[in-house]
Amino acid sequence: MTENYAAVLYGPNDLRVGKWAMPEIDDHEVLVKMESVGICGSDVKMYCTGRCGLEVVDRPVVMGHEGAGHVIKVGSKVSSLKVGDRVAIEPTQPCRACALCKAGRYNVCRRPAYCSTTTAPGNLARYYKHVADFCHKMPNNLSMDEGAAVQPLAIAIHACNRAGIKLGDKLVILGAGPIGVLCAMTAKAMGATKILITDTVQSRLNTAKALGADYTLLVRPDEPDQDVVDRIVDEAALGAEPEVAIDACGFASALRVALKVTRTGGTVLVVGIGAASVEVPLSGALLREVDVRGSYRIANTYPAALDAVSSGAIDLKPFITHHFPLQKAKEALELAKTGQAMKIIIHPQD
Amino acid sequence: MTENYAAVLYGPNDLRVGKWAMPEIDDHEVLVKMESVGICGSDVKMYCTGRCGLEVVDRPVVMGHEGAGHVIKVGSKVSSLKVGDRVAIEPTQPCRACALCKAGRYNVCRRPAYCSTTTAPGNLARYYKHVADFCHKMPNNLSMDEGAAVQPLAIAIHACNRAGIKLGDKLVILGAGPIGVLCAMTAKAMGATKILITDTVQSRLNTAKALGADYTLLVRPDEPDQDVVDRIVDEAALGAEPEVAIDACGFASALRVALKVTRTGGTVLVVGIGAASVEVPLSGALLREVDVRGSYRIANTYPAALDAVSSGAIDLKPFITHHFPLQKAKEALELAKTGQAMKIIIHPQD
Amino acid sequence: MTENYAAVLYGPNDLRVGKWAMPEIDDHEVLVKMESVGICGSDVKMYCTGRCGLEVVDRPVVMGHEGAGHVIKVGSKVSSLKVGDRVAIEPTQPCRACALCKAGRYNVCRRPAYCSTTTAPGNLARYYKHVADFCHKMPNNLSMDEGAAVQPLAIAIHACNRAGIKLGDKLVILGAGPIGVLCAMTAKAMGATKILITDTVQSRLNTAKALGADYTLLVRPDEPDQDVVDRIVDEAALGAEPEVAIDACGFASALRVALKVTRTGGTVLVVGIGAASVEVPLSGALLREVDVRGSYRIANTYPAALDAVSSGAIDLKPFITHHFPLQKAKEALELAKTGQAMKIIIHPQD
Amino acid sequence: MTENYAAVLYGPNDLRVGKWAMPEIDDHEVLVKMESVGICGSDVKMYCTGRCGLEVVDRPVVMGHEGAGHVIKVGSKVSSLKVGDRVAIEPTQPCRACALCKAGRYNVCRRPAYCSTTTAPGNLARYYKHVADFCHKMPNNLSMDEGAAVQPLAIAIHACNRAGIKLGDKLVILGAGPIGVLCAMTAKAMGATKILITDTVQSRLNTAKALGADYTLLVRPDEPDQDVVDRIVDEAALGAEPEVAIDACGFASALRVALKVTRTGGTVLVVGIGAASVEVPLSGALLREVDVRGSYRIANTYPAALDAVSSGAIDLKPFITHHFPLQKAKEALELAKTGQAMKIIIHPQD
Repeated sequence: MTENYAAVLYGPNDLRVGKWAMPEIDDHEVLVKMESVGICGSDVKMYCTGRCGLEVVDRPVVMGHEGAGHVIKVGSKVSSLKVGDRVAIEPTQPCRACALCKAGRYNVCRRPAYCSTTTAPGNLARYYKHVADFCHKMPNNLSMDEGAAVQPLAIAIHACNRAGIKLGDKLVILGAGPIGVLCAMTAKAMGATKILITDTVQSRLNTAKALGADYTLLVRPDEPDQDVVDRIVDEAALGAEPEVAIDACGFASALRVALKVTRTGGTVLVVGIGAASVEVPLSGALLREVDVRGSYRIANTYPAALDAVSSGAIDLKPFITHHFPLQKAKEALELAKTGQAMKIIIHPQD
Repeated sequence: MTENYAAVLYGPNDLRVGKWAMPEIDDHEVLVKMESVGICGSDVKMYCTGRCGLEVVDRPVVMGHEGAGHVIKVGSKVSSLKVGDRVAIEPTQPCRACALCKAGRYNVCRRPAYCSTTTAPGNLARYYKHVADFCHKMPNNLSMDEGAAVQPLAIAIHACNRAGIKLGDKLVILGAGPIGVLCAMTAKAMGATKILITDTVQSRLNTAKALGADYTLLVRPDEPDQDVVDRIVDEAALGAEPEVAIDACGFASALRVALKVTRTGGTVLVVGIGAASVEVPLSGALLREVDVRGSYRIANTYPAALDAVSSGAIDLKPFITHHFPLQKAKEALELAKTGQAMKIIIHPQD
Repeated sequence: MTENYAAVLYGPNDLRVGKWAMPEIDDHEVLVKMESVGICGSDVKMYCTGRCGLEVVDRPVVMGHEGAGHVIKVGSKVSSLKVGDRVAIEPTQPCRACALCKAGRYNVCRRPAYCSTTTAPGNLARYYKHVADFCHKMPNNLSMDEGAAVQPLAIAIHACNRAGIKLGDKLVILGAGPIGVLCAMTAKAMGATKILITDTVQSRLNTAKALGADYTLLVRPDEPDQDVVDRIVDEAALGAEPEVAIDACGFASALRVALKVTRTGGTVLVVGIGAASVEVPLSGALLREVDVRGSYRIANTYPAALDAVSSGAIDLKPFITHHFPLQKAKEALELAKTGQAMKIIIHPQD
Repeated sequence: MTENYAAVLYGPNDLRVGKWAMPEIDDHEVLVKMESVGICGSDVKMYCTGRCGLEVVDRPVVMGHEGAGHVIKVGSKVSSLKVGDRVAIEPTQPCRACALCKAGRYNVCRRPAYCSTTTAPGNLARYYKHVADFCHKMPNNLSMDEGAAVQPLAIAIHACNRAGIKLGDKLVILGAGPIGVLCAMTAKAMGATKILITDTVQSRLNTAKALGADYTLLVRPDEPDQDVVDRIVDEAALGAEPEVAIDACGFASALRVALKVTRTGGTVLVVGIGAASVEVPLSGALLREVDVRGSYRIANTYPAALDAVSSGAIDLKPFITHHFPLQKAKEALELAKTGQAMKIIIHPQD
């Protein structure tokens, strides 16, 4: 623990791994020696465009928000953790004082100090500090890589909670990227009995099927909405209108299909960021009392995610597909850009 | 009880009051001598265009679905009602066998036999038959006119239930027509503490204020969305972002305003029928976990509506503004078309 | 289809299999040739004492409410089923007209005409009639025996729904009888990650473990409540206070343990019938906002039960342990009395 | 602001008003000059017995947890308040780091530092410090006395939220003390249409009726449960089984009546502290799926309480009945002991 290094984004495509100040912890924080940090779709967006959602990179930003590591120092008021503990880091440090935080919805706090944004550094670094109670002690049977991958799993669980998945539900997921696939795995663990996932790339569908989707459907980018709807419901695929549709890709066409295909009284859940303005057949869905809900980041789902992996209810091992040392963070992001990898883990200590 | 007369729509603007077959009741039905029948926005749409939502008038349709009257005959298996009972008629006769009916959501049953559609006659007639358990016995202190107006109130209560109105909520309602105004009255009775209603016509806002809205806001049809949003939140109006926005007009601009103005974690509720496809800033709302929900017709809210009027929690008397005899049904609809009347009641026995 | 035979209870321990009138179906009913009928704890109570809950056998009652068979005749208004269909029979025929039925809670309808009570015959017979929409068409890959066992599974699903089981929950189930074990299997399928089941008989715990419980705990009938609580939470067992406790045995001691052991903010769910009056430490649980809820029979869970078995999420095969022909119904009940069998199936056509 | 005085409980009946250390605020706290502090049933219990619930007075405790006053000093990191602000103090300072706090249920945090317990001083003092974000800025039209009385109102709102009061509900409240009466006022503001309140003292019922109960019922302490149940449901009183029963007195007999009288599918809500162990007819209620829920302190209801008073939805003025200067705190508690006063306010600056 002599020097710190971090992967810092200075602007679009300008990622550099270099020396970085060693963090100083306060009374409620811990210092973590980072072991595994995952790369996510929003990292790719930030890397490619210097923007993601409302975030704009107008100053250097340390990347990384899917991290796990060892506690190597604890603040004077920390009692929940001790040096040596293995922790998965929930990448937020909300204000805890606004009405939303107090009501248990800290994910939509306006001052979340979320990792890897312009208001808070990420943890794609050798050393990183974080408020102790958002560092979750990992069960012994989880690897550091799994600890890192718990972050997108916690997002998928929050999404599936918001979607209200129930035992016996039929489900369509639009988009076979990492979040779509984790939603499939989560929904299966919650009792969804038929899960169909769609994508425009067959190789992604193959992976999705290997990881837990029951059915896959390759759609053409220009395919008429109603054709996709019909093929989802068709006997060869789901066999009936799904109770829940999850839009995990952000394309307006996916949202349109979701609104049309969902069963009367069901739910369309949107996870991730779509276009600012979309043309959608909303009225038809609302008249059938199909609820449209968004899911943003993570609220109180880390413990369930850790337990689900530890108990074997969800197996993250096959979900983790690629590994890089910190020095090759840029290569990792370039690979992520291609959409060929499921989950890439960077190892800051290598 | 010699002859029956009904107001029948034969096509756009072609409404005729004429002789009509006397209904024959079966074992579970009652025959009702109709005393008061309200006119509603959907009646106007049907009358003017021969269509409403998915309904198309391709055969003669008896109008009327907001009715109250006296029971004059009961089927052999009816035990809940007797001759002479005063009843408010919930205008649906759902299948009771589909999954939605069994789950308590009979309002979205696919075979609802809803009054005044091509699959079921309305009750704008001297005599009308209906399944007994959807005829609700009226408290003694309700007039027949109030019994008729309980129908749109039950719609407003269902809408407010779906919106999840809570004590202390701030609320914006877009559209000061009858349903918008009844939503204001209902939300007030549920504990909403600040209710702002918008419209493009000042006279409607004046009525809304007299009937229970705390604040009104006159908007221009071409006013930019963000200006309306700002004026709603402005100190002079609501003073903060509302927890709930109710779109009670069906214009895309109202929906856009609702999506923008609603507080993070809140709810946008759409009651009524909008355009088939709309261009809306949905993603911004969903990222803030604003839920978008529709409300369709009535589910289990007639008893609450009757109790609320009977107890004085909601006063329907000033809501009822005009009266016509059955023979002048066409004049009543022409008046309704102008948007100047709040609630028109037709009296089939006059 | 010449003659009908049924197993009829004439009083405590007085069960006789004999000729019985062939049912006549009405327009909405189907006639079912029964293939498999399960025996349940409430059957045993009725058989031994002539009572169960509020039911008193004051006239001959045809036993059986866990049945599956072939449709051999359909009423004139039945469109959902046809001759030859394989159906699992949800053993209720509620009124559909009371406020509870209309609100989706038909399980607590006051006039349910529930099978095998004094107001409705059971289906432990060669031929049995039932209203068509409560006969659920079975997926092809389910056996008739599984179709019969779907009934107690649907009860367990309703119980777990009422308990609000979520992914990652820890759960204690008090009582390793058929319903307790099915609750364990269901909760596992819903994502509960640690399930401990208690009983006073080790052999039942062994079966529970084989069928899906993660942990078992043998308790002594006279063991102090607090000792049981401590042993449940102990590292060797569950490791933490459970979010949910399910009382599946009806003993006051189990309820006391449940109230004490459940985590603050959690739920105690009682399935089945306990003593009319119990001495319980209720205040301590309520101050910690532990909700106490009962679960009664089945509401809208047959479709999920069928799907869960069909998809493999829940495997009922090892749950079914014994088989008898109709003529030996009395022997079957005598075996059930011993508590040694998990699920006994009677075959009316053998 | 030279010297501080506080009302301190040293043991049963040993309350002394004397000099007390002036609080030193930290960065997130404010110093409040107390203007009005209410006396509550739990104060009386503490005063009389040196105990309340799990609390035991084993060291001197400053009394008071229903307070309002002026901010006279703000910590360096406080931005939500400034000197001169009028604030109502929510009397808790939860840990914000446990799973319950994070999930929005800070009322059941295990380390709440709740005012006037052995772990946190009360605010029945001239000067008092508190964490800023649990000091709620008061609307201009609220008096300091109303600001103090908002505390028990927030408790009543939390209770009514947990009870799930809906528009049109019928409600029975057992116990016409301050919390029972505030629950009646709150339930009325939420739309309950018929509210019956019971007590054993007629004068308390008279007050309850004046403050908002629709019906009152005087019960004898030794009256058989079923007689009370029958009289509640009787035409002369509520007229039907209530959807919700609130036990606001803590007697086992009240809980028994609540369990029996509540409508199938309804809710029994217990607010306040009952006997450690009670003999109750729980099974009968649970078989009818009557939920039994407790309500503990306050969770996220201060804003609604302030808005409800400010808007006039709830009028606290007639609820406040007596006033004392700080020096006469003991006299105030002696009066409270008699049960004759509704709400007593102590004025620390007099």
